[in-house]
Amino acid sequence: MIPTIEWKGNQVRMVDQRKLPGRIAWYVCRDYGDVIKGIEIMVIRGAPAIGVAAAMGMALGANSIKAGTYGAFRGRFRKIADRMITARPTAVNLKWAVERMSRLVETMADHSVAEIKAALRKESEEILAEDIAINRKMGKNGQKLIPKGATILTHCNAGSLATGGYGTALGVIRAAHEAGKKVQVIADETRPWLQGLRLTSFELMQDKIPVTVIADNAAGSLMRSKKIDLVVTGADRIAANGDVANKIGTYQVAVLAKENKIPFYVAAPISTIDMDTPSGELIPVEQRNAREVSHWESRNMGPKGVQAINPAFDITPGRYVTAIITEKGIIRSPYKREIKKTVKK
Amino acid sequence: MIPTIEWKGNQVRMVDQRKLPGRIAWYVCRDYGDVIKGIEIMVIRGAPAIGVAAAMGMALGANSIKAGTYGAFRGRFRKIADRMITARPTAVNLKWAVERMSRLVETMADHSVAEIKAALRKESEEILAEDIAINRKMGKNGQKLIPKGATILTHCNAGSLATGGYGTALGVIRAAHEAGKKVQVIADETRPWLQGLRLTSFELMQDKIPVTVIADNAAGSLMRSKKIDLVVTGADRIAANGDVANKIGTYQVAVLAKENKIPFYVAAPISTIDMDTPSGELIPVEQRNAREVSHWESRNMGPKGVQAINPAFDITPGRYVTAIITEKGIIRSPYKREIKKTVKK
Repeated sequence: MIPTIEWKGNQVRMVDQRKLPGRIAWYVCRDYGDVIKGIEIMVIRGAPAIGVAAAMGMALGANSIKAGTYGAFRGRFRKIADRMITARPTAVNLKWAVERMSRLVETMADHSVAEIKAALRKESEEILAEDIAINRKMGKNGQKLIPKGATILTHCNAGSLATGGYGTALGVIRAAHEAGKKVQVIADETRPWLQGLRLTSFELMQDKIPVTVIADNAAGSLMRSKKIDLVVTGADRIAANGDVANKIGTYQVAVLAKENKIPFYVAAPISTIDMDTPSGELIPVEQRNAREVSHWESRNMGPKGVQAINPAFDITPGRYVTAIITEKGIIRSPYKREIKKTVKK
Repeated sequence: MIPTIEWKGNQVRMVDQRKLPGRIAWYVCRDYGDVIKGIEIMVIRGAPAIGVAAAMGMALGANSIKAGTYGAFRGRFRKIADRMITARPTAVNLKWAVERMSRLVETMADHSVAEIKAALRKESEEILAEDIAINRKMGKNGQKLIPKGATILTHCNAGSLATGGYGTALGVIRAAHEAGKKVQVIADETRPWLQGLRLTSFELMQDKIPVTVIADNAAGSLMRSKKIDLVVTGADRIAANGDVANKIGTYQVAVLAKENKIPFYVAAPISTIDMDTPSGELIPVEQRNAREVSHWESRNMGPKGVQAINPAFDITPGRYVTAIITEKGIIRSPYKREIKKTVKK
């Protein structure tokens, strides 16, 4: 599996997910501004991957600061943090990573600027390594919920490419596959950006896990005809009450799963849980360019001047979520109490 | 509005809906085989439009029969009917039109072959004219259900292009617009064929009815945030118990509407009701080429060799349908009894 993001000398490179699976192209970041742009234009996407990218971007940004004193360095670093945090609004992992990097700077007042820069780079490498380890732990926990021979629906891409590696939802699927459970996957193509058709099927085909892509419109019909046993998706942010922000269309899948009595699981690291957000209505939902809906590459598929709206995420109320799979264990309703308990573990 | 299908001398021409809205190209049918192919490859689509095309195709087929006697003509005509009926399996209007044309031939045993051919052409013209008149009647009936200033979600294209003219679901919307109700439309783009993005928005923009396209994934989220007041779709076949076969994704929209307490209406002519099919499970659902999902024009958007499935329709159980709008009035539950009553009117 190609790495989602990595250090390459003093630069950070990301595989350009806009070009996949047709072409493997590297997007090289020389400074934090390149990372911010990469996140904004979706060279890299997926909440945990955005978190890793933000951490590496902060380390890159630190490297470019020319400051003789801790105070000067800290002031400049804070400005970079403020800018980094605006790259995309919904995935809380971005904020989480920026805060973790900022806390490190706060603890190093009596170190040299060079030492702080080195520590920040090391921290970003640790965040990447931890993310992969967390995903493997989550996979191990989550795969217990997957019956042998299950057909699993997933929405968007919550795989290796959405994380440091291994994946959240696809991590659970990979762990079930590795446990010999002979699962197969139905991948929602996930309009408008086609993460399912372009990325999820690509990852699973590389791992030789059977995968079939469907138009998002077909998920309900397959559920009704009992061709799907369970659903697993990732999350961009989970509120303290268990409401889940995830790729647009997730809410629909969850409602359809409930209507058809199919378990609907969300797999996400603890860093995706935002204890500062009491409920889903308070999660900001990014509105992206309407051209992502009306155009394929540079070509308008609709009539000239057609209006479109393009919310990138939606909110699934906790009542539709059968369980949340984390590296610290499986969380079930009542979410408010159980999330609090698990986060503190 | 450009005509969906029309006689042009001794030929039938259809606007090629695969090319819309980018280009207005005519697909000319010299014989019934051209019509069958046009239906199969979706030059023309939409249940009522397929019915009109089948009727015209039967008249074209009749013209090409070289037979001296009624018996010989009838035998050849029946073979054409058998072939025509296989063009697409789900829309019952195809069968309905072929049967209507066949019944006409049965009643003309003491006419010359030339007279029968002329009568068949005239019948096909009447089916077209009736279809438009029926749609206007349906619009008049249905618009009473539309509140002033309503935002209406529609799925696929059940407009002028799906019928002889004016449309079924869009006929209801047009009638509400003409009644000065200041409605606006949210159009599901309707993957994989993008009828909503390509055709529905095109029709409504021509009529200056405000329309906004969304990825199919966004419908549920808009309903939950109270941005949709009601749903109207067309139908490809309605079983005697009120179960509705329509474009893939319709079932999902209906479930989401119910979950969010939003009325879900189906607009269809009586010819779409199939009294020979007691319930939805018995309606054949066409499986189309997987390339419609994985490819945009000739380009594979997914990984090489990706598997996809592509059911063209789904079944919405009658319990999700608030009412069925027909030219003979509004049908409400209990559907089995009320449909029977209305069809007999």
